[in-house]
Amino acid sequence: MKTNRSNCPLTRALDIIGDKWSLLIIRDIIIMGKKTFTEFMKSKEKIATNILANRLELLIKHELLSVTKLPNDQKTKIYYLTDAGLDLYPIICELMKWSDRNLNKSFGPIGSKILDDLHTKPNDKIIAEATSSYRASRQEILNAIS
Amino acid sequence: MKTNRSNCPLTRALDIIGDKWSLLIIRDIIIMGKKTFTEFMKSKEKIATNILANRLELLIKHELLSVTKLPNDQKTKIYYLTDAGLDLYPIICELMKWSDRNLNKSFGPIGSKILDDLHTKPNDKIIAEATSSYRASRQEILNAIS
Repeated sequence: MKTNRSNCPLTRALDIIGDKWSLLIIRDIIIMGKKTFTEFMKSKEKIATNILANRLELLIKHELLSVTKLPNDQKTKIYYLTDAGLDLYPIICELMKWSDRNLNKSFGPIGSKILDDLHTKPNDKIIAEATSSYRASRQEILNAIS
Repeated sequence: MKTNRSNCPLTRALDIIGDKWSLLIIRDIIIMGKKTFTEFMKSKEKIATNILANRLELLIKHELLSVTKLPNDQKTKIYYLTDAGLDLYPIICELMKWSDRNLNKSFGPIGSKILDDLHTKPNDKIIAEATSSYRASRQEILNAIS
């Protein structure tokens, strides 16, 4: 897939995250606090190793994701979101709300927790809380490597 | 790709519209007023015939899109969105806004018009206007076939 099929902003976004996996990785990082390849592999959607490696590489290439290693563990790659990557959270919320409004309602516990929040709190507040909480955990990584 | 990889609402949504083309077709229907296969083929992203046919079929299968023929033209298939398909518009707006905030800003005229609106009007108002306008044009199709 060549990028920049057109200069429509929707197309530009889909050129990068228009697939079945990228936003699940972002979900796992923001909502589940996952940071490593092994943790991403454990998600219930059972992503294949090569697809995960490919998506991580693409997200890094487009500067939505960064990768580092902690001083006390030089073997494990630690992935964390850039601000542009974290800024995908409003899209994730809209997709969840669309599912909630239009698809069969037997969602699992993770989705249900977020949907409960989306039903009872203003959207902006949920996004601000998740963003601020993620920024704090990202800062711990950045402090450890600085 | 098997559907229902998990019961997370995000995954459920991506199982259906997690690709590079489906939301472009929805965009063309809502924003450009397109209704036919030939019109979809003319979009600047140059979708391949087989991909377009496949995506239309999938959108119909998941009841986001319906298809009919007008009494005065039994050759041309007319595609129109169901309420669940039209309800994807908030996701399209979030994707455009994310592009606008995070990607290089040289967008073409269609994107610029919508982004101007997204910058100057409340989100809810833009979505309500587009939805109401689309419902009116869909009603014309439904009247013609009733």
